[in-house]
Amino acid sequence: MNGRRAAADRLDKPREACGLFGVHGHPQAAAIIREGLFALQHRGQEGAGIAVACGSGIQVIRGQGLLTEVDARTPFDALNGCSGIGHVRYSTTGASSLRNVQPLTGEGADGMWAVAHNGNLVNAGALRRARQEAGALFHTGTDSEVLLHLLVVPNRPGGDRVAGALEALDGAFAFLLLNGRQLMAARDRYGLRPLSLGRLGPAWVFASETCALEQVGATHERDLEPGELATVDADGLRSTRFAPEPPRRAQCVFEMVYFARPDSRLFGHWVHEVRVAHGRRLAREHPAAVDCVTAIPDGGHYAAQGFACESCLPLESLFVRNHYAGRAFIVPDAAARAQRADRKLAVLASAVRGRRVAVVDDSLVRGTTIRRRVAALRQAGAAEIHLRIASPAAAHPCFYGIDFPTRGELAASGRTAEDIRRFVNADSLGYLSPEGLVEPLADGDRFCRACFTGDYPTAMGSDDKTSLDNDSDLGDSHG
Amino acid sequence: MNGRRAAADRLDKPREACGLFGVHGHPQAAAIIREGLFALQHRGQEGAGIAVACGSGIQVIRGQGLLTEVDARTPFDALNGCSGIGHVRYSTTGASSLRNVQPLTGEGADGMWAVAHNGNLVNAGALRRARQEAGALFHTGTDSEVLLHLLVVPNRPGGDRVAGALEALDGAFAFLLLNGRQLMAARDRYGLRPLSLGRLGPAWVFASETCALEQVGATHERDLEPGELATVDADGLRSTRFAPEPPRRAQCVFEMVYFARPDSRLFGHWVHEVRVAHGRRLAREHPAAVDCVTAIPDGGHYAAQGFACESCLPLESLFVRNHYAGRAFIVPDAAARAQRADRKLAVLASAVRGRRVAVVDDSLVRGTTIRRRVAALRQAGAAEIHLRIASPAAAHPCFYGIDFPTRGELAASGRTAEDIRRFVNADSLGYLSPEGLVEPLADGDRFCRACFTGDYPTAMGSDDKTSLDNDSDLGDSHG
Amino acid sequence: MNGRRAAADRLDKPREACGLFGVHGHPQAAAIIREGLFALQHRGQEGAGIAVACGSGIQVIRGQGLLTEVDARTPFDALNGCSGIGHVRYSTTGASSLRNVQPLTGEGADGMWAVAHNGNLVNAGALRRARQEAGALFHTGTDSEVLLHLLVVPNRPGGDRVAGALEALDGAFAFLLLNGRQLMAARDRYGLRPLSLGRLGPAWVFASETCALEQVGATHERDLEPGELATVDADGLRSTRFAPEPPRRAQCVFEMVYFARPDSRLFGHWVHEVRVAHGRRLAREHPAAVDCVTAIPDGGHYAAQGFACESCLPLESLFVRNHYAGRAFIVPDAAARAQRADRKLAVLASAVRGRRVAVVDDSLVRGTTIRRRVAALRQAGAAEIHLRIASPAAAHPCFYGIDFPTRGELAASGRTAEDIRRFVNADSLGYLSPEGLVEPLADGDRFCRACFTGDYPTAMGSDDKTSLDNDSDLGDSHG
Amino acid sequence: MNGRRAAADRLDKPREACGLFGVHGHPQAAAIIREGLFALQHRGQEGAGIAVACGSGIQVIRGQGLLTEVDARTPFDALNGCSGIGHVRYSTTGASSLRNVQPLTGEGADGMWAVAHNGNLVNAGALRRARQEAGALFHTGTDSEVLLHLLVVPNRPGGDRVAGALEALDGAFAFLLLNGRQLMAARDRYGLRPLSLGRLGPAWVFASETCALEQVGATHERDLEPGELATVDADGLRSTRFAPEPPRRAQCVFEMVYFARPDSRLFGHWVHEVRVAHGRRLAREHPAAVDCVTAIPDGGHYAAQGFACESCLPLESLFVRNHYAGRAFIVPDAAARAQRADRKLAVLASAVRGRRVAVVDDSLVRGTTIRRRVAALRQAGAAEIHLRIASPAAAHPCFYGIDFPTRGELAASGRTAEDIRRFVNADSLGYLSPEGLVEPLADGDRFCRACFTGDYPTAMGSDDKTSLDNDSDLGDSHG
Repeated sequence: MNGRRAAADRLDKPREACGLFGVHGHPQAAAIIREGLFALQHRGQEGAGIAVACGSGIQVIRGQGLLTEVDARTPFDALNGCSGIGHVRYSTTGASSLRNVQPLTGEGADGMWAVAHNGNLVNAGALRRARQEAGALFHTGTDSEVLLHLLVVPNRPGGDRVAGALEALDGAFAFLLLNGRQLMAARDRYGLRPLSLGRLGPAWVFASETCALEQVGATHERDLEPGELATVDADGLRSTRFAPEPPRRAQCVFEMVYFARPDSRLFGHWVHEVRVAHGRRLAREHPAAVDCVTAIPDGGHYAAQGFACESCLPLESLFVRNHYAGRAFIVPDAAARAQRADRKLAVLASAVRGRRVAVVDDSLVRGTTIRRRVAALRQAGAAEIHLRIASPAAAHPCFYGIDFPTRGELAASGRTAEDIRRFVNADSLGYLSPEGLVEPLADGDRFCRACFTGDYPTAMGSDDKTSLDNDSDLGDSHG
Repeated sequence: MNGRRAAADRLDKPREACGLFGVHGHPQAAAIIREGLFALQHRGQEGAGIAVACGSGIQVIRGQGLLTEVDARTPFDALNGCSGIGHVRYSTTGASSLRNVQPLTGEGADGMWAVAHNGNLVNAGALRRARQEAGALFHTGTDSEVLLHLLVVPNRPGGDRVAGALEALDGAFAFLLLNGRQLMAARDRYGLRPLSLGRLGPAWVFASETCALEQVGATHERDLEPGELATVDADGLRSTRFAPEPPRRAQCVFEMVYFARPDSRLFGHWVHEVRVAHGRRLAREHPAAVDCVTAIPDGGHYAAQGFACESCLPLESLFVRNHYAGRAFIVPDAAARAQRADRKLAVLASAVRGRRVAVVDDSLVRGTTIRRRVAALRQAGAAEIHLRIASPAAAHPCFYGIDFPTRGELAASGRTAEDIRRFVNADSLGYLSPEGLVEPLADGDRFCRACFTGDYPTAMGSDDKTSLDNDSDLGDSHG
Repeated sequence: MNGRRAAADRLDKPREACGLFGVHGHPQAAAIIREGLFALQHRGQEGAGIAVACGSGIQVIRGQGLLTEVDARTPFDALNGCSGIGHVRYSTTGASSLRNVQPLTGEGADGMWAVAHNGNLVNAGALRRARQEAGALFHTGTDSEVLLHLLVVPNRPGGDRVAGALEALDGAFAFLLLNGRQLMAARDRYGLRPLSLGRLGPAWVFASETCALEQVGATHERDLEPGELATVDADGLRSTRFAPEPPRRAQCVFEMVYFARPDSRLFGHWVHEVRVAHGRRLAREHPAAVDCVTAIPDGGHYAAQGFACESCLPLESLFVRNHYAGRAFIVPDAAARAQRADRKLAVLASAVRGRRVAVVDDSLVRGTTIRRRVAALRQAGAAEIHLRIASPAAAHPCFYGIDFPTRGELAASGRTAEDIRRFVNADSLGYLSPEGLVEPLADGDRFCRACFTGDYPTAMGSDDKTSLDNDSDLGDSHG
Repeated sequence: MNGRRAAADRLDKPREACGLFGVHGHPQAAAIIREGLFALQHRGQEGAGIAVACGSGIQVIRGQGLLTEVDARTPFDALNGCSGIGHVRYSTTGASSLRNVQPLTGEGADGMWAVAHNGNLVNAGALRRARQEAGALFHTGTDSEVLLHLLVVPNRPGGDRVAGALEALDGAFAFLLLNGRQLMAARDRYGLRPLSLGRLGPAWVFASETCALEQVGATHERDLEPGELATVDADGLRSTRFAPEPPRRAQCVFEMVYFARPDSRLFGHWVHEVRVAHGRRLAREHPAAVDCVTAIPDGGHYAAQGFACESCLPLESLFVRNHYAGRAFIVPDAAARAQRADRKLAVLASAVRGRRVAVVDDSLVRGTTIRRRVAALRQAGAAEIHLRIASPAAAHPCFYGIDFPTRGELAASGRTAEDIRRFVNADSLGYLSPEGLVEPLADGDRFCRACFTGDYPTAMGSDDKTSLDNDSDLGDSHG
């Protein structure tokens, strides 16, 4: 039903890696961006910011927390201009301090720049050190700042400078760049992260997901190509390549399985349709002799719908969410977080007692939350619990901007399905097969499935992610 | 799936009338009450408070907003004591100012009292004026303050004073009362509002709904009887009657249809079971030749589940909730509120296009939100939209603590089902029959169905609710 | 130089007992009151509030902290009306919670009332108990609430009711009362607390001190008489007596010595003139063979000026105040408070070294702060330190609204001047004589000097102040 | 009496340019720095921050407003380490946004750096552009950031790099620099801005003024020399020169006249002694036949003391400060600011009426506040008002970090003393002569008196201050 789940539920899910929204040519750029980011809030709840070009300068408002919280403290309405970019953040690299909230800004020889980034650069550490050795001073702990510095490397003509900077980056990214005259958008050469182009009357709009285009009333024109750099200015939109068409695209399949909102059209597919199809295939691959089907809220919902429909079984809601769990509880440690997750999801005991239940979730990463859900059903008196996962076993870490657990934390890393079944204490466990995963995707080979297969699309560098985490900023305080 | 819906969704639903939680005999009374109120937050989001008896005095922390918000500003942990009561508030009478947040407190000749109230007193105005004419000074605009004043009327022995005060009240109420030695609980003579009794080890617990007993790990012993006054003190629990057993109970059926959490056991029934049964009956009364069934989130969910199951139709989620709509947006007027409701509920257009859809909701009160939902489905290309309401047409105002619209605002007041169908622009509209409403309730005649039938359980006074609304308090400001 | 001192300096001074300001007949009543209270902030920094009559109701905004802090959180501009009263509070009775911040309001049979009080009622406990036994419910821990309750005692005609209520009160007070039609002002029968009447164009204005009249541009017409009740309504001002002219007035001499702003005209005298005269007399009574005269900031300033002038000695500033000590430091216990007082007052060591210094302060109550000042001068190398106090030894507690130390805490209670000299470690100590105190006051016998003489103007009841302090309110929390 | 005055009083005074405090070798570095900055708050109230070295990294807490306000939001106690620097800020260049609050931090090839700056660099624009053309990215609008960038310019050995960077700077500065191993302190080659060195047990301490050394209990060892770079690390303190001993020092005389706290020892002189001496000399240069002498609070106090003493006239306090004027009033424009200044300074009318008054202030820059003070005295009935200024006519702008008015705003620029007398409406006006200014300073030629004489100590560049003000940051928002 609800395509999104609150932060507390996502404890053993990979965390998203930010949402982007940009607009050029709209007199109320900040208001449009705010509305667009509102539809992307599921991609990051730790920080939000908007930068708007204003004359030759750029003004920015940023803050920690939800978009609405930042707006309540410092209204985005104060930003005047026709062109701007916005960002919602889920920290992947860089500690969670105000200094790391995006868009990042800086002033080089040719003026101000702002940048917003979704993804993870695998060669950021090397590029950062190289720039530092050339005399650059870094102000944040994010890999995203590297691009800002590459943009101002001297002795390169302007347009080429941006393409050259992007070409130097390895890893996963969607970028929005802003200067006093232009809005630019780019997507990594593999197409790992999504970025869509839309129109809103005469204005051009960019968004991480099409649900944000819909939110502002824009039409979805097309997705950016992998390796494409789109530039919008007074002369309109033009497109170049900073990298050649890749031999094989590597669109992140986890966006489809879990991250994206079900009403988005992602990489050419309606997200909810793919998830329902996954559930149907899962029912054929791992049928269950049960009395009813239930979803683990909220991620498993559409797969459960497909599973129930294909199985001719009733789809029932056996979990009750407490929507008011809220952010205000201070939850310092992991144990407290786990408890909180439980507090806000009750079980309909009378509907569970004595029944055989098929429980569907979108994925099983650490397995710890699912384990608690199974235990809750068992405590409520379920006769049998058959767990069905609408994606294959996730056994390999991600290096492309998804805050995946390390190999050791992945439930499926080095363990059999039977090991995991015992761990979560289900009566049976069925994963969707890798073939089932791509079945509803006619272009399944264009997807990165490395977390399921270990087949990574780029040559991994030896970059140590942690080298970027020496964040120096305990906090900026704002009256 | 989720039994609760956020405030913004409830615009054309009646609003709830507060949640109560009390405990006696637990060394961490405040923490237990906080946890219990947490599970009752769906009953009121405008204010929260806890009062704890401490020596001969009573300490109280109260504030506007969600329980977690109040706690973040003034931690309830500061309250020390073994006995206490708590309240979450949805204003029914009295403007929404801090002064009106409960528990209310006052000091009479025999010491401090605190009171928490769920319901609406129909003779509050008259009682208030009588006390004022006897020299009483009122400090809030709530009807609940009347009870505090009746408690301290002189020339009556102690125990009788409470029973006498309760006896004087007409209308709907569940009350929790606290003084330095005792915790008391009472339920009106008709049984309009719910109140359950539980045990938590040696401690006694009271809660508006059993889901709160479950939340704190307490067992559900029984519900309070209509007209019962339960008193807990160092000698344990004892029970008396302040009013005789009524000839006919009048338990609020809207609690069953909409207010209560689906996992509560209410008036002897599991809420979600009743709602599923309503959906099944609705499918038999008003079958629909459609391709799928969908619920209007979140209230219609269990009825939709029953409808789909009985119809052998797939249950699909065609609406996508934005969970981050949040409270931080300042939504000053009705037009803005309507817009906000839309912003946070998207339609899965690709799953709607060209299909015949049965849309199920729990009730139709004003009809304005449902109308927007139907319009959204139509805009997404639905071939046919068949609206099914899992309760009868609500045509009569409520005087018992539910913030029901006035007669003129009720869609069904003086209008035929066909009028309403045209208003919401559905292809067909079917209401559950009054007989269907009580079918799953073996004791259906013990329910107040006045909003559907116009048959009110008490002799209505001429009390003007507005006479209580002369709230004088623009605001208390707290650093 | 500055007549006021910050809270932290006042640790061993008596604390003030609130400031009042009222206006009738001005279209911007709230703005005028805010401005007037601004000039009375020295009389209380713990809370501030304004109540304005609006139609038949009364609206009030109150909060903890400074006037400007309350205004920043909830702007007083929201109060519309032509008549209103305001209050700044220094708690004397009742703990420092929001619930006790004035103006207090309540609704009786004849509508809403608001009350603001400066002073202390010695028979409040007995009156409170009597009303409680008659069925009244008290909502605050303040003695001031007693008047509200007396105002609504039935079976008395309206005008008489107010006079009768005031007549019942014993102790010190200035009161401002507001209902939907009238603004009333009263001063206790002894004249202990000040209250002045002014005009601002056609509007009538009341203020605790004339400096507040000046602040709003009003003229000072006269002071209220002891026992006078002034009433302003649409028919203008009229005055009655609720108590006969007292045989002897008892104006608080500590107002003159310490509380009032030096630019106020108090009880018929310019405050700074009296203080300079006290310093001159002190120089004659206790001359000092020193190199210079210095004041303990800020209270001793005008007396030091008189002392230096009379002695033909240079007046030097040997202490340097840190104006930014601020309120933001959380100072939980007495030790920390003492340390803070030191942090913010440095000594000009190079100007002190080797010199003989006369140090002048307005009064010596506990003596602890003065002791630290003397120690600081000594540490800076002063050759001799001669302490001169511009009032007699304070050896008797005050029961009239001044937060005086108990007898045991009074330095001069049961101790000789020599004991105190040793305690503060001065080379000599001279107090102004009781005769010197009244010398500049032609009407010296109209002043209450009980704290210096033990001669109290009223028959003290056995009222236990603490019986009012059972404050139940840990805090109201405001979002 | 009080050497400092609140922000609102300083409207026509030059504004200060920040305070610095650093410590190396103390286990509670942050607490010591906080205490030291507390005594320097008069040098800047717009922002405060502390950076502490912690392992190889640096942690920083910064915020807008007073030190106590920043501390209340984000306690400095969270900073652990033995070495650190702190800053209080009065914006001279760079708009007043959080991004510009110091210490500034950045990471270069050799790790993290933090910098705190008091002063103004006259060649900052040119240096910034040069670094930007070499590929540097600037993150703030402050001139101070230039030094951070110069520190990381490659191809220079470590120690030389710092000295080389400092050498490149022209203008006024005191700098504190921090990296993982070292604390460094430097003072510009002219000695324009003060910086003192102290010891606190084994720890080394640096402070803008000695009053801060006193505050933490440190001894004052000596002042840094102009052109000196002091470095403290595990090997202790060592000192080098980055610039040769200047032919002529240029210590800012305005520090002596107005900025510094009277209890500081500045450039070898006790500040209050110099100010008293100025007042004495002024009395000889411009005697006044008056009845009394008064100071304009607070700046004129010590000069007035000297004036009165030399003239054998009584020193009287004719102005009364309202200490509660506070920061909470939002004062958007100049007119409102002017009104606020008046609200908080009342005149003792009864002491002024009919008398001839000598009014002493430390300086006359714009003249607008003085004019209002004279008008207030005149309105109170002063017979004659003789204005005496304890410094010469300020006719020339300052380029060294003092936020002086532009030439057009300087009252004395292009106007005669008679013009100014008429402007401020005094009966006579006397300025201290330039000779009188240096009389109490044996080394008077080592002072920059450019604002009085137009004789600037450095070759002024054509640097446009405004080029640094393209601040892009509307605000960072912090939950």
